[in-house]
Amino acid sequence: MTSTRATLMQVAERAGVSLASTSRALHGSGASKAMVERVVAAAAELGYSVDATGRSLRMKKTFQVAFAVADIGNPVYVDMMRAIHEVLAPQGYRVVVMSTGDTATSTAELVRSLSSGFVDGLIVSPLRTDDRLIAEIQRAPVPVVVIGRAMDDRGISSVSTDSAGGIGEALRHLYGIGRRRIGFLNGPLDTTPGSSRQRGFDAADHGEAERFDQEIADDFTVTAGLEAARRLLARRPDQQLDALVAANDLLAIGAIRAVRELGLSVPDDVAVTGMDDTEIGRVFQPSLTSVSLGSTERGRAAARLMLQLADDPDQPAQQVNVGPALRIRESTVLEGGE
Amino acid sequence: MTSTRATLMQVAERAGVSLASTSRALHGSGASKAMVERVVAAAAELGYSVDATGRSLRMKKTFQVAFAVADIGNPVYVDMMRAIHEVLAPQGYRVVVMSTGDTATSTAELVRSLSSGFVDGLIVSPLRTDDRLIAEIQRAPVPVVVIGRAMDDRGISSVSTDSAGGIGEALRHLYGIGRRRIGFLNGPLDTTPGSSRQRGFDAADHGEAERFDQEIADDFTVTAGLEAARRLLARRPDQQLDALVAANDLLAIGAIRAVRELGLSVPDDVAVTGMDDTEIGRVFQPSLTSVSLGSTERGRAAARLMLQLADDPDQPAQQVNVGPALRIRESTVLEGGE
Repeated sequence: MTSTRATLMQVAERAGVSLASTSRALHGSGASKAMVERVVAAAAELGYSVDATGRSLRMKKTFQVAFAVADIGNPVYVDMMRAIHEVLAPQGYRVVVMSTGDTATSTAELVRSLSSGFVDGLIVSPLRTDDRLIAEIQRAPVPVVVIGRAMDDRGISSVSTDSAGGIGEALRHLYGIGRRRIGFLNGPLDTTPGSSRQRGFDAADHGEAERFDQEIADDFTVTAGLEAARRLLARRPDQQLDALVAANDLLAIGAIRAVRELGLSVPDDVAVTGMDDTEIGRVFQPSLTSVSLGSTERGRAAARLMLQLADDPDQPAQQVNVGPALRIRESTVLEGGE
Repeated sequence: MTSTRATLMQVAERAGVSLASTSRALHGSGASKAMVERVVAAAAELGYSVDATGRSLRMKKTFQVAFAVADIGNPVYVDMMRAIHEVLAPQGYRVVVMSTGDTATSTAELVRSLSSGFVDGLIVSPLRTDDRLIAEIQRAPVPVVVIGRAMDDRGISSVSTDSAGGIGEALRHLYGIGRRRIGFLNGPLDTTPGSSRQRGFDAADHGEAERFDQEIADDFTVTAGLEAARRLLARRPDQQLDALVAANDLLAIGAIRAVRELGLSVPDDVAVTGMDDTEIGRVFQPSLTSVSLGSTERGRAAARLMLQLADDPDQPAQQVNVGPALRIRESTVLEGGE
């Protein structure tokens, strides 16, 4: 039994607009948001279903954009994903989220698989990058926007941030509130975030420090942060650290637990800073002082670059940079304190 | 310039297996895990790329399964997603994550859009269900497995849990540690989780209670939990509650913040329980006593049902139930305390 299907013409009549406008609105190309809403409402009332298989054969478009990240469980990507969705949905695009895995190779394989043609574009935030991955992005059959390292010099549109500068801001804050024994808790140095944060720590002015030290966590998770902070805090209890700078909020949450295991308090004995300004950091107790790297802004910028590339895949690669901003909260400065 | 592509025969020779086995392994149909690994390794060495467009035209298969949830930011779904991936990836399927939105209508529209044929199946966890959504699932062109309400009586394979019983377990624990003034913090009652948790609270034996009360949060987020808990705790400060049962971990984290705003401590003054046993609840301080609803087990069960339906879409609908289990932690019982 086949159901009766409304035609595109019936949708156009119901919406009270031209057939061409209806087609543009349903296909996400060049219609205003108001027009899209009007036509989509008419289509929904009539139970009109865009035949996407036929449509994609005609137009070679799927109206799907993939957002691929190493770890869907990391809350920094949730903000990015929501921002990407907010920009792309009104244009008729659906956002699907995929996992790249940890390595440059697994990420390159994902980019390669785009030849299957189930998305019109890919926004990818690689944890690690190598030449093969860059080559796969350069020859990908659909537009790719990278969130991470600047790659416009390789002909790849990308959205970057200055996490090195962000580590510098966290350090200036800690020295400014009188901390002099600083521990740095970084993630793996062969990752894009790990290497840039390390540059920031190494380049900072440690002139006021009595001691500084660092430890590398196995990855960017709470558990890895707890384990690495335990090692760091056990190293010289006679001259215990009074501040920990963590490479992201998850590592910082693990570090706070490690501090408390020693019977020390946050922030009185040890102040702790995170990075990424995630929701979990804001609701944690103590709430986390964290360096925002503009995850929402970066998501929006990447989505806008994707829309431009969807219009004109041959335009030159563009580069957008979003600067860091320190958010001071309870993990470094108690209310009414310091 | 076109690159030289390896043929399927070259992959078969490299893997040392038959052409048929190679094809089965690469197409995820009826090959052992060891065979798949061997053939995929050979394909990777040769840079062989399965032409999925051609493949899907021939086989009407995309080797993608969608996992659709209301809120990708809710950590309970991260555990499910990882479990689904673990079961499906060895069978050659990629998992893409999609957002259904909050409503039954938006979820029904997502199911309807599956006619576009970009996935071979859908695992969906609807926040709200209505007749139209059930009808769309029943006539979906690909297999659908529901995580949520049991729907086998409607011919839909589904994975359910007993969150009503889970609320009962949390209440027995709280009465057992001597709490007598119980507040229930639920989410919206017109949602599947909200209505089942409410049944659990209403059906529990409150014979030992001196007072019980409840408040409905606007949704299942930390912010909504904070606001609802503030209202609940402000109601009768003369006979303040000594325990809060929250409908999920995010509401519980909001509730802990509300308790502390009043200068009260968790768990000494007010014990707090969550539900879903999420990673954020485990790392929170105090760590959350929470009712596990087996999110990993439910994800695995849903993925296995999907594989069975992929083999035989006409088999009868199945129903899997995963029971609740209380995890007791610091938010109700301090170490060495009570």
